[in-house]
Amino acid sequence: MTAGTVLVLGADGYLGWATCLHLSAGGYQVIAADSLVRRRWDRECGTRSLIPIRSMPERVRLWQKLTGRRIAWSRLDLGDASAVADLVAQAQPEAVVHFAEQRSAPFSMIDRAHAAMTQANNVIGTLNLLFALRDHAPDTHLIKLGTMGEYGTPNIDIEEGFITINHNGRSDRLPFPMQPGSFYHLSKLHDSHNIQFCCRVWGLRATDLHQGVVYGWRTDEIDAHPGLRTRFDYDAIWGTVLNRFCVQAAVGLPLTVYGKGGQTRGFLDIRDTVACVRLALQNPPANGEYRVFNQFTEQFSVAGLAAKVSDARTAHDLKTSIVHLPNPRVEREDHYYNARHQRLLDLGLQPHYLADTLIDSVIAMTQRYGGRVDPVELEQPNVDWRRGGVPWKTPSTKQEALRPVQVLSAGANRRSGAATPSPKARLAQAR
Amino acid sequence: MTAGTVLVLGADGYLGWATCLHLSAGGYQVIAADSLVRRRWDRECGTRSLIPIRSMPERVRLWQKLTGRRIAWSRLDLGDASAVADLVAQAQPEAVVHFAEQRSAPFSMIDRAHAAMTQANNVIGTLNLLFALRDHAPDTHLIKLGTMGEYGTPNIDIEEGFITINHNGRSDRLPFPMQPGSFYHLSKLHDSHNIQFCCRVWGLRATDLHQGVVYGWRTDEIDAHPGLRTRFDYDAIWGTVLNRFCVQAAVGLPLTVYGKGGQTRGFLDIRDTVACVRLALQNPPANGEYRVFNQFTEQFSVAGLAAKVSDARTAHDLKTSIVHLPNPRVEREDHYYNARHQRLLDLGLQPHYLADTLIDSVIAMTQRYGGRVDPVELEQPNVDWRRGGVPWKTPSTKQEALRPVQVLSAGANRRSGAATPSPKARLAQAR
Repeated sequence: MTAGTVLVLGADGYLGWATCLHLSAGGYQVIAADSLVRRRWDRECGTRSLIPIRSMPERVRLWQKLTGRRIAWSRLDLGDASAVADLVAQAQPEAVVHFAEQRSAPFSMIDRAHAAMTQANNVIGTLNLLFALRDHAPDTHLIKLGTMGEYGTPNIDIEEGFITINHNGRSDRLPFPMQPGSFYHLSKLHDSHNIQFCCRVWGLRATDLHQGVVYGWRTDEIDAHPGLRTRFDYDAIWGTVLNRFCVQAAVGLPLTVYGKGGQTRGFLDIRDTVACVRLALQNPPANGEYRVFNQFTEQFSVAGLAAKVSDARTAHDLKTSIVHLPNPRVEREDHYYNARHQRLLDLGLQPHYLADTLIDSVIAMTQRYGGRVDPVELEQPNVDWRRGGVPWKTPSTKQEALRPVQVLSAGANRRSGAATPSPKARLAQAR
Repeated sequence: MTAGTVLVLGADGYLGWATCLHLSAGGYQVIAADSLVRRRWDRECGTRSLIPIRSMPERVRLWQKLTGRRIAWSRLDLGDASAVADLVAQAQPEAVVHFAEQRSAPFSMIDRAHAAMTQANNVIGTLNLLFALRDHAPDTHLIKLGTMGEYGTPNIDIEEGFITINHNGRSDRLPFPMQPGSFYHLSKLHDSHNIQFCCRVWGLRATDLHQGVVYGWRTDEIDAHPGLRTRFDYDAIWGTVLNRFCVQAAVGLPLTVYGKGGQTRGFLDIRDTVACVRLALQNPPANGEYRVFNQFTEQFSVAGLAAKVSDARTAHDLKTSIVHLPNPRVEREDHYYNARHQRLLDLGLQPHYLADTLIDSVIAMTQRYGGRVDPVELEQPNVDWRRGGVPWKTPSTKQEALRPVQVLSAGANRRSGAATPSPKARLAQAR
């Protein structure tokens, strides 16, 4: 069977771009669409990808030159309902892979405007897509990126989307009760309910990938050429925790753990993200079916991750310290967590478990791009769950931040970590 | 204790206005706010309240003249975040009663634009209110009108918002799993999750009233003067089922049951709605608490309700027939339904159970305003859950509808209902 057409929405993002390459390499006709708003949000927040990334047209041109495979690039905002309908009607894709959402929890917690924008952008964008599928391509398989953060941290085992509840002598299989932890996570839950409804009422079919926290920067396809690289965020707004720890370690700053660090989550390698999307695509649900896969490979606590990074450094005789900062989020720091993640394994996922080599690879990459590290981005975040905040630091601090950190050689990075100095002091030391 | 200030949002609506009067009569300083968009939607849909209603300024003036009690009227759109913040900051209300949402399931199912508008309007409006409370009145009690429709029809007993789940040897009290049945019902669920999050993270306090289907048109306060009446909808977009059946019976049309009519829901009298809101207000939750009350007094199936209306007519020696129309909704027509509704009773609710006298009262009122009945509105609805629709009938039909039904005297209404004629045929007969 020839692989069909796949529309990837949010194709300019960290995972969207890696997915485009992986599916294109697998023989799919990929249409890559994105509004490019993420690059604008970087300008708003004063953040940037640690790894320099090329424009979408440049990247798809390079990919075609290297492989002969064509990725069709389309600039598209999911908020433009008629453009979405036109693209879906024209493409008649086998599947739509939908990454095209505002995906930062801190960004959604900045203030009212960011909360409202996140929910309107994500929920209405997804509604526009659902109607386009109903009207123009009802057999298309919707593969939607959700998040493990929809579940929160219940005191019972987390199942994959649904749970059989026995109650007062009766039983039903019902949606797993959800307790999301930010306006962003809430927007994903709203999407999940809307999608589930559309499958039931309109007979659409969808896979909701409740994804854990992703780390890493390399996939087989990205490795083909430096110009194919995908973005890599390490700041407090867009960065995910392991990537952030690696950058902190690389520039000789302490790893900053929020609160006690007992917060446990599911994690996965970016190589597994692209594999999971492909597996979902190759094994579609029936018409009318809404299914949930929990997409992660291992559970770690934040403190446990910090220890892993520290240990990986110790193996190279480098000392890394860990500091506990006041937690800007409202979340349990000590809780039960056991989430099932069997369905993608059943489909054949071969996990890349977290190893020192991955941590070494991220740190080595960081050292290559050390001139682009803004140390202020590695300090205590400005956005607090209780009172909001601003995405950028104060002007004076920001100005300071324009001076890049000098990336340390292995020798200079070696130090004894007696008392834990403040981030600022460490920063001064690092210079 | 002196009753404090209460801000009622959505004060121009069916229940909002009745609530304003009830709370004002109870000594509360009521601020009544509304965008008046519901009157605009009537113009869009070609619908209108069966009972003529006065403007908000007229109604509050009349109320003050009759009782000496002042209701402060404010035109306000919840989409205007800064206006919401200003009003909340200035009023410092003891409670906000929030009815200000698009509340029709069929309206939300018309097409993409109506679905998106419903969700954006409801979810973002409520977010604006939540931020206003956080920033300006964090101790205010938010009383939010939700819906029993958030639960759907699970095969287990429905609890009030939360359920204790035992699973794999562990236990937790978690949000009850929800399966809403329209984009409107989904918007209420999205609100519920957002509100619950804000209580947890910001320490707000809220009561989410998961209300059943309301019927009736009179309250003690409304009865004081015809000029105080609240709207009464009977059409397929805005009307609720019992009100609609009563109007059908009054004009001699068959009662139109969707599908088998086994759909079971919770119902309550409008007098109980206003009492429930007052009871919630008088018994506020603690700061940080999010609680759910299931607000209804009795369960009926749709077919059972139709039989009740028919029986009430038979008591007056009037014959009413029942027709089963193709169900425009996607819902189970034969299902288990048992929803707990204890918490408001525990606070002292004295229910008005559905009686023939209520049905007689609605029918008598309908006959008074029979000249305003548009028979086309009583036919098969135009909005279908699978394919959407238009809120209004086709132009030719609409034109026909401009001729009001002649309301029949008791004698003329008596007929033998052998074979069930089509709605059109019945309509012709009724003329």
